[in-house]
Amino acid sequence: MLQYRSMADSSSLDCDVAVVGAGLAGLTAAAELAARGFDVRVLEARDRVGGRLLNHPVGEEPEQVVELGGQWLGPGQREALALAADLGLATYPTHTEGENVLEDHRGRTSRYRGTIPRLNPVAVADVGQAQVRLSRLVRRVPPHAPWSAPGAERLDSQTFATWIHRTARTRLARETLALACRAVFAAEPAEVSLLHVLFYSASADGWDSLLDTDGGAQQDRIVGGSQLLAIRLAERIEDRVEVERPVRSIRSLDEGVVVDGLAARRAIVAVPPALAARIEFDPPLPSDRDQLTQRMGMGSVVKCMAIYDEPFWRADGLSGQGLSLPGPVQVSFDNSPPSASPGVLLGFLEADHARRLRSLPAAERRDRVLESFSRLFGSRAATPVDYVERDWSADPWSRGCYAGILGPGGWTGYGPALRRPSGRLHWAGTETATRWMGYFDGAIGSGRRAAREVVDRLER
Amino acid sequence: MLQYRSMADSSSLDCDVAVVGAGLAGLTAAAELAARGFDVRVLEARDRVGGRLLNHPVGEEPEQVVELGGQWLGPGQREALALAADLGLATYPTHTEGENVLEDHRGRTSRYRGTIPRLNPVAVADVGQAQVRLSRLVRRVPPHAPWSAPGAERLDSQTFATWIHRTARTRLARETLALACRAVFAAEPAEVSLLHVLFYSASADGWDSLLDTDGGAQQDRIVGGSQLLAIRLAERIEDRVEVERPVRSIRSLDEGVVVDGLAARRAIVAVPPALAARIEFDPPLPSDRDQLTQRMGMGSVVKCMAIYDEPFWRADGLSGQGLSLPGPVQVSFDNSPPSASPGVLLGFLEADHARRLRSLPAAERRDRVLESFSRLFGSRAATPVDYVERDWSADPWSRGCYAGILGPGGWTGYGPALRRPSGRLHWAGTETATRWMGYFDGAIGSGRRAAREVVDRLER
Repeated sequence: MLQYRSMADSSSLDCDVAVVGAGLAGLTAAAELAARGFDVRVLEARDRVGGRLLNHPVGEEPEQVVELGGQWLGPGQREALALAADLGLATYPTHTEGENVLEDHRGRTSRYRGTIPRLNPVAVADVGQAQVRLSRLVRRVPPHAPWSAPGAERLDSQTFATWIHRTARTRLARETLALACRAVFAAEPAEVSLLHVLFYSASADGWDSLLDTDGGAQQDRIVGGSQLLAIRLAERIEDRVEVERPVRSIRSLDEGVVVDGLAARRAIVAVPPALAARIEFDPPLPSDRDQLTQRMGMGSVVKCMAIYDEPFWRADGLSGQGLSLPGPVQVSFDNSPPSASPGVLLGFLEADHARRLRSLPAAERRDRVLESFSRLFGSRAATPVDYVERDWSADPWSRGCYAGILGPGGWTGYGPALRRPSGRLHWAGTETATRWMGYFDGAIGSGRRAAREVVDRLER
Repeated sequence: MLQYRSMADSSSLDCDVAVVGAGLAGLTAAAELAARGFDVRVLEARDRVGGRLLNHPVGEEPEQVVELGGQWLGPGQREALALAADLGLATYPTHTEGENVLEDHRGRTSRYRGTIPRLNPVAVADVGQAQVRLSRLVRRVPPHAPWSAPGAERLDSQTFATWIHRTARTRLARETLALACRAVFAAEPAEVSLLHVLFYSASADGWDSLLDTDGGAQQDRIVGGSQLLAIRLAERIEDRVEVERPVRSIRSLDEGVVVDGLAARRAIVAVPPALAARIEFDPPLPSDRDQLTQRMGMGSVVKCMAIYDEPFWRADGLSGQGLSLPGPVQVSFDNSPPSASPGVLLGFLEADHARRLRSLPAAERRDRVLESFSRLFGSRAATPVDYVERDWSADPWSRGCYAGILGPGGWTGYGPALRRPSGRLHWAGTETATRWMGYFDGAIGSGRRAAREVVDRLER
């Protein structure tokens, strides 16, 4: 039984606001509220802050890290860039110098520059016209209310796979678009509603910005690792953050809420819907919100990094960026720290590739990843000095990455329930963002928005 | 913290098998195991057995009931019919005598006989050819492994909405098929994978059998109400069933499992994936199973019944069966008990209709339902002596009805994880059935299959 004390008057509350989750969204909300003088507590299930951000030390030097979770920011991400600046964190560009590599169906590699590889000219044109059509659709979708887009029902009753199949005519173009879908959502085109793709693009600066490195969402990194965003933010409210404090129940009363035994005036739940689904709410959440949480599953991704004494591919004129149609690593990057020592190749196993490989023994999966790297960057890739990976779907406090995904019918059936407060409960997390959903920026923005909601109500 | 005692030897266990959930699946499994001499316990969250089966008394006579949950069985449902017979429960036919009513777009009503109404001849032919095509596809799908069907990926990368749109040419036919989808799944065609529709039909005796009353899944009812299936079954193992015992954690150890403090050799989790998702498993479930539970949301349905002194529509030559394209009640039945006293009209609010109406105040929703009944069956329908309804999505121990639904990418991405045991954990529930998934029959069959799995392992 849940224990709580009487909340007949507000003096018997433990705090003003309880925040569930010490990811970027929860920490941002808490820091905003603390700065305005509210008594706030953050309850975090893990033994660390940062949620889907996680630094991992590499090499000999201190403070050399790679990120096992989210790592990039890009132009137009005003919230993220402002927070980094505010926290005194410097950024540096993702390494893009040199040529990229494409591995085609038959395992033949070729070099190219830019985001879209030099497929055959017909396929390039085919991808191009598909992207133009997609961009046209994106402009119809208001990111704060995708369900109100003209033709929303039609856009939400088809999968991205159906749209790709109907729009692109060559196999090569279809596979390139499918690969892009996996790279953006860690989901197969079959799993994602077309309307979700359009919303997601509209919430960013368009579909291209999701894919691009230079000028796009993969442009920049944080010196010292992206988790520093969360760590530094948490330092500002250090005494308000409790780790290893999973929230399993939230009880709403007339006078306040009891969050895992902690009595507060209001609560901000700053975890993805798939995790909020695991909390026992008393009284139960409104049907729409509860059913939304049954439908917004997390993507499937294993992030893999091979560590070498140096980024040997640079000497070969290669950027470390690769695309592979056969996979299993379909997308790779040079993920070396600014010092370029050590050299790091980053590869993603996404969607079906992740599902197929994550059940293998770790050593076999490593072999498969290194084979991918070797085909793209040469045989030196087969013998790293170290190898690290992270299967985010095996982590019960994430249940997957990069973010929650809505399949067909999701936005039109349940969209308004994503952010609408339920009594004294407010929702944050990058999944609730209207700008850069799925990114740091969306998480931060959602935390600020949830904090504003709470302030508005508490200051009334 | 979870309290449990040492399980160094099996004598320190509380029982052989712990079963989570006292719906038909869990009770069947438990009864089978008990009959074979195993010490079994059933833990049920609610204060009653039966899960999605729930009797509700009506009228003056004792033992006159209507069912607020699942209520029908039909030919070919061998497990369900055998269980009813075994428990000494009689069946009676759903009332079908008389003509059915169709309300078209413009609110005009007309009478018809059979399952498919007399639309205009073009639309009838259009629905007919679509159903023929669907049946052809159904035959390709093996219900024990839909992901292995020829072309499974293609079938699973489109929504039923996409298929309807491509296959049917008239608006009337498309809307009729959409109505059928809502009636079967309590979901919009946008939400359901074509492969799920095919699997579901294959697990039954075809698409038609899902829709039909005479000769189909709505043919028969249980005298005394369907919940008696669960109540009588539970009586056989009365001392093994604990109600008001929600299971929030399951811990797997080398020697056994600890289910909410109860130590057993094995456990059968006999709740839908969307409910299993709320249990905290330690160690966490394999990624595939966990991610499956993030994606198999429950349908949306409010079951509504208006109770009259007598089934007045019968005197008008009407069966009480109605189809309405405008809705909100799109499907209705005469749901009177065998005595026909009182008379009961049953109407379903499904999918978008349920979502739109469930947020209204109860009195308004009632008015909307009675207006639907009145348009179909005349003004006497507006003044019932009683009215009852049940929104299954507002029930935290169901989270929706009729069953869990897989959207596109679900079966091909996660299908094998639906039934595969995880260590000492076995999965039951109608969602795991290969025959009549979503029906009593599937629940019972799944319970028997899970019991066999456990017996095989315990008797080794």
